[in-house]
Amino acid sequence: MGNDKLKNIALKDIQIKDSFWNKYIDLVDDVILPYQWELINDRVEDAEKSYCIRNLRIAAKKEEGEHGGMVFQDTDVAKWLEAVGYSLAKKKNAELEKIADEAIDLIADAQCPDGYFNTYFTITGKPRWSNLFEGHELYTAGHLIEAAVSYYEATGKKKILEVSCKFADNIYDVFGKEEGKCHGYPGHPEIELALVKLYKVTGEKKYLELADYFVRERGKKPCYFLGEEGMKNGDYFFPEFADFDMDYAQADKPIKEQTKAEGHAVRAVYLYSAMADLAAEYHDEELLHQCEELWENIVQRKMYITGSIGSASYGERFTTDYDLPNNTNYSESCAAIGLAMFSNRMFQITKDGKYMDIVEKALYNTLLSGIAMDGRHFFYVNPLEVVPEVAEHNPTMRHVKTTRQKWFGVACCPTNIARTLASLGNYMYAVSENTLYSNLFINSEIHAELSNGTVEISIDADYPKSGEVSYKVTQEKACEFTLAIRKPEYSANTTVKVNGVETEYTLDKGYIYLNRVWEPQDEVIVVFDVEFRFVHCNPRVRDNIGKIALMKGPWVYCLEEIDNGEYLNSIKVDENCKVQALYDENLLCGTMCAVFSGERIDYDKAGNTLYENSKPSYKPVTLKAIPYCEWNNRGKGEMIVWMREA
Amino acid sequence: MGNDKLKNIALKDIQIKDSFWNKYIDLVDDVILPYQWELINDRVEDAEKSYCIRNLRIAAKKEEGEHGGMVFQDTDVAKWLEAVGYSLAKKKNAELEKIADEAIDLIADAQCPDGYFNTYFTITGKPRWSNLFEGHELYTAGHLIEAAVSYYEATGKKKILEVSCKFADNIYDVFGKEEGKCHGYPGHPEIELALVKLYKVTGEKKYLELADYFVRERGKKPCYFLGEEGMKNGDYFFPEFADFDMDYAQADKPIKEQTKAEGHAVRAVYLYSAMADLAAEYHDEELLHQCEELWENIVQRKMYITGSIGSASYGERFTTDYDLPNNTNYSESCAAIGLAMFSNRMFQITKDGKYMDIVEKALYNTLLSGIAMDGRHFFYVNPLEVVPEVAEHNPTMRHVKTTRQKWFGVACCPTNIARTLASLGNYMYAVSENTLYSNLFINSEIHAELSNGTVEISIDADYPKSGEVSYKVTQEKACEFTLAIRKPEYSANTTVKVNGVETEYTLDKGYIYLNRVWEPQDEVIVVFDVEFRFVHCNPRVRDNIGKIALMKGPWVYCLEEIDNGEYLNSIKVDENCKVQALYDENLLCGTMCAVFSGERIDYDKAGNTLYENSKPSYKPVTLKAIPYCEWNNRGKGEMIVWMREA
Repeated sequence: MGNDKLKNIALKDIQIKDSFWNKYIDLVDDVILPYQWELINDRVEDAEKSYCIRNLRIAAKKEEGEHGGMVFQDTDVAKWLEAVGYSLAKKKNAELEKIADEAIDLIADAQCPDGYFNTYFTITGKPRWSNLFEGHELYTAGHLIEAAVSYYEATGKKKILEVSCKFADNIYDVFGKEEGKCHGYPGHPEIELALVKLYKVTGEKKYLELADYFVRERGKKPCYFLGEEGMKNGDYFFPEFADFDMDYAQADKPIKEQTKAEGHAVRAVYLYSAMADLAAEYHDEELLHQCEELWENIVQRKMYITGSIGSASYGERFTTDYDLPNNTNYSESCAAIGLAMFSNRMFQITKDGKYMDIVEKALYNTLLSGIAMDGRHFFYVNPLEVVPEVAEHNPTMRHVKTTRQKWFGVACCPTNIARTLASLGNYMYAVSENTLYSNLFINSEIHAELSNGTVEISIDADYPKSGEVSYKVTQEKACEFTLAIRKPEYSANTTVKVNGVETEYTLDKGYIYLNRVWEPQDEVIVVFDVEFRFVHCNPRVRDNIGKIALMKGPWVYCLEEIDNGEYLNSIKVDENCKVQALYDENLLCGTMCAVFSGERIDYDKAGNTLYENSKPSYKPVTLKAIPYCEWNNRGKGEMIVWMREA
Repeated sequence: MGNDKLKNIALKDIQIKDSFWNKYIDLVDDVILPYQWELINDRVEDAEKSYCIRNLRIAAKKEEGEHGGMVFQDTDVAKWLEAVGYSLAKKKNAELEKIADEAIDLIADAQCPDGYFNTYFTITGKPRWSNLFEGHELYTAGHLIEAAVSYYEATGKKKILEVSCKFADNIYDVFGKEEGKCHGYPGHPEIELALVKLYKVTGEKKYLELADYFVRERGKKPCYFLGEEGMKNGDYFFPEFADFDMDYAQADKPIKEQTKAEGHAVRAVYLYSAMADLAAEYHDEELLHQCEELWENIVQRKMYITGSIGSASYGERFTTDYDLPNNTNYSESCAAIGLAMFSNRMFQITKDGKYMDIVEKALYNTLLSGIAMDGRHFFYVNPLEVVPEVAEHNPTMRHVKTTRQKWFGVACCPTNIARTLASLGNYMYAVSENTLYSNLFINSEIHAELSNGTVEISIDADYPKSGEVSYKVTQEKACEFTLAIRKPEYSANTTVKVNGVETEYTLDKGYIYLNRVWEPQDEVIVVFDVEFRFVHCNPRVRDNIGKIALMKGPWVYCLEEIDNGEYLNSIKVDENCKVQALYDENLLCGTMCAVFSGERIDYDKAGNTLYENSKPSYKPVTLKAIPYCEWNNRGKGEMIVWMREA
């Protein structure tokens, strides 16, 4: 591992104009950020109360009242602010900047003189740091820091950064290995990766050291949470936490001994993201190897085909290898985002395309299934099979919502989706000294500063509707640099043409490296194989035995009741059937549908007794599937990803 | 509906000597009752504390201390005492009677001067009847009354009956339609059916009226539980009850409007049992019809093939029609017993064999799966598919135990199983004026008083290992009476021979009626078709689409890991395969196994990636299935009932 961890291209230097992604990205500025501002101000009817701004006003003594909402309620305004920062980085917006500055003023006013910031503990007067296991103070601090870095980088305004540094200094004084300091660490990791960001933007080494402390102290024996100062013995904010063992919070063993992904899925991937950051900063090969092991454990044992994670609702957590039920799973939107964050970091350290394959999977499927195409409704939980009648009457599935919701009491997902969409560019490209990495094939124009000079490229793509991606050099001067194009693992046949001439290429860890002196108007055309394909699951996943899923490029497809009637799991499909691609420009703002044949049980001929029935008859049927990410945009109904194989 | 509700034969007049049932019944006297006595005295190591006897001693002021265990803890001693009554009715046992009398003395001493009895409320001093929704006082009273009736009928001793009558009188004074009385009713039905029993043994009409009041008041608007006096607003014994709607307790609508089985499964079937009792006592055709509708809704929409009910763990409840998941279900042992109780009552009113088919299904499968063959370990929850690794790591299944437990904090099931095994005779036979009904084909000798005289019959059976059942008349005098033999619905070919001559018969609601003057040594031989058969489920049950189950007579079969390796749901079976019956006298005290061919995934050839795998290869396999009721008697392992159909 060298010193050459890849870097992002500044968001302002990436202009996205994509037929698929702009359906969502445009919502961020036009709908989501203004709407979420209304939400956190409690001005949206019929939505769950947020209390966010009100809590800030109360803590700032501008209003009287009690704290509302969860102990970590401040994170909603922080994640909103972080998204605003990304948005402003891309495009000035005076009105948005004005309300963001108002929110920042409120945050600064709500900050305690010693730097501490948390409206819950300030308003209630409960003792600070008294319940690290579930009090979420350090988690909340982490989101504030991430917001500050984003907003500062976008606007150059220092106020929120100074608030965050003052808070981070306060935390540094409280926590650490040294005698007299608290030897605790957060129940919910988040601050660790935020502190690395803060270190990078300020150059202040102690923030990196604090992140390192929080990560490496974790899980040491005896466990802090079970000790006298720890919080696993007392009053609970969340009664169910009494049930949870230390593996829930990745604190059951020292961090260096953790090689299998365990516990609460979001906590896990936020922690692993910080571990990757620290591995890079400290050139810690051992820690990096451990991150690879954890990542492999997730991706080859514990991840849904949609890139979501968290097989169980209770504990919102990982369970055991190959346990991937399709209808009782949690698959939180935030956890898929966290997996993308972790994977992106691993790619930037290792330059291995396998990590970006998973980023692509998570973003094209679960990130987007988390948000309705109106930008105003969200899923927290992303099942792969839903029967509304059952989900609404069987409490085993009471975490599953059968339509997206306006807001949630715990609203981590909507703001997380917003900040991820707003910063999509960070996943699309990366640069090393003189190499430009192209990871996601999204129609865009970029400007990048490489060691040999300025590079400008126009990427023309309609991916994964089409597998053809064109890179046109648009800069004015010739420049020698390397263009590294990710070849997705799924693409069986991939061709590369440079200026119309098919070019041999070799792959290095999933990348096609093209080095030359690029002249203006040079063009690379890569064609990936995005034909529809039926995918088998590892048969150790019991829930998918005898089933297949349909994919096109990174898109996982699903059947919906509105297109295919009810009893979707009575349908059988032959993996050798021909799948017709049918682009419907009127459906869901333009969607690539799949049409294919199958058979289904003929319920008209089914008996009425419960048991001792005759074998059911099947009849042929024409099926229509749409990308999973766009399901549930046409009302409530059944949905299924894994279909029975004929 | 006439006046001729069928009656039981006294337990003392039924001698059971059955190769299958005595494996369990003999345990009641030899193991279970003595063991449960030790348990409720907290003298069994490593078992959960019962506190039962200790609570009685504290309430009786013979000991100081706090109440231990649940608010309904007294029911464990009551159900034990009820079982003791049935046991003593069959066979004198001075030692058992002595400890039972001691328990009765304690109960009497713990009773309040005004008749009220409940150790929880007495010891804690909490206000009586202050939380009918979940306080279980009336439920606890019901079990005391059932115990009293059983013990009195067995021994003729009146003490416990008098305690119960005094308590029932107290309840009668507190509850009722009349002004000044409390208009409440129990959150958990049970007292209603108990009061009918008490009425029948004492002839005291007011107990019947009180049962009738409790049933008919239920669900009236506005709902008592939601009113000022009601308990659904306050402090909870069980925090999750805050989540539950009134349908949980069958109180969401007036009882006459309830036609679909809803809510907590045990509550439901205890309530419906009382409704059937009242329909019979009051000759209420409408109520009876309603009971039929409820029963049909359960049996044709909401019952597992094993006769268990309750599809969801949270709320231990019914969900929606055809929602029968195999691995997350509750299927409480007590609920299957309650379904047998309800069905038996419906049979006794209607003389329809369909009800006894379900009694047989529940008893031969779930009653017995609830108890280990050592008589000392019990299942509360009875899934149809278990993968221990998943059940132990995915909290969605945290209610599922992967081995039977010694005792439970809530120990309703072990005592319920004991009282049912001890009173099995009540399900085996019934009599009307001059007709003897034979329902369960269990090797036994009976003595019955019919209107034309005494009848004695020896039933020779090894059912369902064999389908041949012989009835030999052993009385000394000829007697004209009708022998009514249930023909199980599943039996495709049934032959009847009287004294060696094959006899034509017609069926009346599932019964073969044979009327003649029976001479001593006359013999009827009935042969039912108990060949192994593969059963399809209604395809509206999504969880069983594409699957089949193996049955023999009423026995449902299952595959266990110990016989068939892991990944049981990778196995495919052709419904036309030949099934070989293999009786193994060394297995599980003698068990009828099924041996047949199938195919399974060859995991040696399976890839290691999670997705994008090749189609799995299958290899032929010889399978061995055992009766479901005997699973998990050879250690922890996978188990499956519904197998994939080839």
